[in-house]
Amino acid sequence: MATLCKPAVAVPENVITMADTLELARKVHHGHPQLDLALRLIRNTGVRTRYIVRPISEILRHPGFQARNVIFEEEAKRRVPDVVRRALDNAGVGAAEIDLIVFVSCTGFMMPSMTAWLINTMGFRHGTKQLPIAQLGCAAGGSAINRAHDYCTAYPEANVLIVACEFCSLCYQPTDLGVGNLLANGLFGDAVAAAVVRGQGGVGPRLECNTSYLIPDTERWIGYDVKATGFHFVLDRRVPATMEPLSPVLRRFARERAWDASDLDFYVIHAGGPRILDDLSRFLEVDAVRFGHSRATLENHGNIASAVVLDALRRIFDDGGMRPGSKGLIAGFGPGITAEVCMATWVGDDTTLDDELAGLVAPQLAGAAAA
Amino acid sequence: MATLCKPAVAVPENVITMADTLELARKVHHGHPQLDLALRLIRNTGVRTRYIVRPISEILRHPGFQARNVIFEEEAKRRVPDVVRRALDNAGVGAAEIDLIVFVSCTGFMMPSMTAWLINTMGFRHGTKQLPIAQLGCAAGGSAINRAHDYCTAYPEANVLIVACEFCSLCYQPTDLGVGNLLANGLFGDAVAAAVVRGQGGVGPRLECNTSYLIPDTERWIGYDVKATGFHFVLDRRVPATMEPLSPVLRRFARERAWDASDLDFYVIHAGGPRILDDLSRFLEVDAVRFGHSRATLENHGNIASAVVLDALRRIFDDGGMRPGSKGLIAGFGPGITAEVCMATWVGDDTTLDDELAGLVAPQLAGAAAA
Repeated sequence: MATLCKPAVAVPENVITMADTLELARKVHHGHPQLDLALRLIRNTGVRTRYIVRPISEILRHPGFQARNVIFEEEAKRRVPDVVRRALDNAGVGAAEIDLIVFVSCTGFMMPSMTAWLINTMGFRHGTKQLPIAQLGCAAGGSAINRAHDYCTAYPEANVLIVACEFCSLCYQPTDLGVGNLLANGLFGDAVAAAVVRGQGGVGPRLECNTSYLIPDTERWIGYDVKATGFHFVLDRRVPATMEPLSPVLRRFARERAWDASDLDFYVIHAGGPRILDDLSRFLEVDAVRFGHSRATLENHGNIASAVVLDALRRIFDDGGMRPGSKGLIAGFGPGITAEVCMATWVGDDTTLDDELAGLVAPQLAGAAAA
Repeated sequence: MATLCKPAVAVPENVITMADTLELARKVHHGHPQLDLALRLIRNTGVRTRYIVRPISEILRHPGFQARNVIFEEEAKRRVPDVVRRALDNAGVGAAEIDLIVFVSCTGFMMPSMTAWLINTMGFRHGTKQLPIAQLGCAAGGSAINRAHDYCTAYPEANVLIVACEFCSLCYQPTDLGVGNLLANGLFGDAVAAAVVRGQGGVGPRLECNTSYLIPDTERWIGYDVKATGFHFVLDRRVPATMEPLSPVLRRFARERAWDASDLDFYVIHAGGPRILDDLSRFLEVDAVRFGHSRATLENHGNIASAVVLDALRRIFDDGGMRPGSKGLIAGFGPGITAEVCMATWVGDDTTLDDELAGLVAPQLAGAAAA
């Protein structure tokens, strides 16, 4: 048993609204032959606000790959610890009880990774295992959950901390002028998210089984060109259409557990863009309303890469969580094109359950005593 | 149970001898105030030959980070498949039977990683899980083995393919002139290694338990500065001395299984440099001869980063393997400074054992029949 406890999420203080984005695009790309198309695409994202680690004026001046990585490290060290502390608190687990840290990020590169710094500075045991993942992009959120699940399956007493640290604004490339890049400039946001997967106890989705699926021959559809100026995002216009071939995979995966992918109680979906959600809703025959928490992440934070799934799940918790026994699906999508998916059953707090039972029983006892 | 089957290893065709290295250093760094020290350090590595993916004349002309990553991708696609095929053959496992691919490399960056390309081109199932690791450096060989072990512990029927693809020559930085960098230029080599960890069956080290240890506050001792020119290797002179604090960790880890780290039957040690082996031999009180396979890797291939442990293990197999029941330790060291360690018991081929037993029994049966 492995339970994904309530995630903690933080977004930076520098806000960009849709209006800011459109105005910037008009100004920066004035005269671009496809500007109107880009503006329409950006408007269609539905992203109302995004938050970035540095003021937009600073982001627009690309300071070089080296400076960007220095900023990544500074901002990660500044912003990750508080989120980690809150994730530990949410799970009722101390740093010293964590056995594995899965740290995922595709927007800055450090070696050693942040796992070493976290262990040295935040009270984790020096024997804590480290699993940094940089190359799974937006799918890494799902992957982190799934690898944590695998780990707790191997070691049922273990606790795994997962951290998604994505500063997408640090991958802004002013020289990339394709429509896909212009769209990306209006879509991605920055965030840090963390959660604990507890082998024993915990409240939240109990991870039942997980799977991964690589859509054949789509390697070039999402990815990075790695250049002297850093990571250059590549986005093929065919990406949103991948929900069509993925849907039967999700259906089959659910059916293996005798679940119906079209009729689950909760969905935590990587909201890479609005069409991902629209198409998945259509092909899975799930009312789009059921993806509301994922869409709220997209609208309020933009595509925050591997942090999306943790933020969407956090919203479900904030809405009061699910009833124990509720069945759900968590799905991350990213380069490959890879889907990292798991099925989960919501588990409640046994203590609370005991209290509730006690509450039910107590009046009867009182009645018996009065009798 | 998880058995690490015989690794396959390939080194490129361009050879550099110690004499070549010394001559190059004298020529390229003529007039460098610490040239003599650098030459002495290089001589002390004991690295007789190294192999690199492109001719040295090409490597010395840094073509830029982008071109380097293109070369990494080309060379990886050219060299990895054959090694993977041989590793699968060694393990008697088909590509379609692999459940997880752990691909480790710190010398080139691709997103999607090579795992996607391997799945698309080599007959792996599209449901194969992908675990690319880029940020654990030389420790990633041990980490790949340990994560494969964890995975087979969770799913005892699973097979995991691990691949270490290290083209260290593509991280040569002509502008880095510190003594540590000059030494690194004479130490690292290129190689591809792969092996299968089988959940059931297989011949080789049966992985019993694994651990990880981060030496406190040594984050800056090994790592990368990430610049427009790519990954710049940082090496602190104190690194070899880390075997002193690590030895008690290894001893304690062995003692937890009632094993004696000083008296095991085989050792597969990351041969980062000669002093790593010398110091570990001293502090563990193990005759240096017992690290012979690791030293042979260093002498013949140089420090091939995460591929060292797989190459050293391959040498044990080539020497006839170990007797079933032999106890051993596999240890990777890298940035953090992190040690990824496991304990293993050699398992033989049951079929062979049956044959041997049949051979012992048959004469008796023959005698009984004659009586």
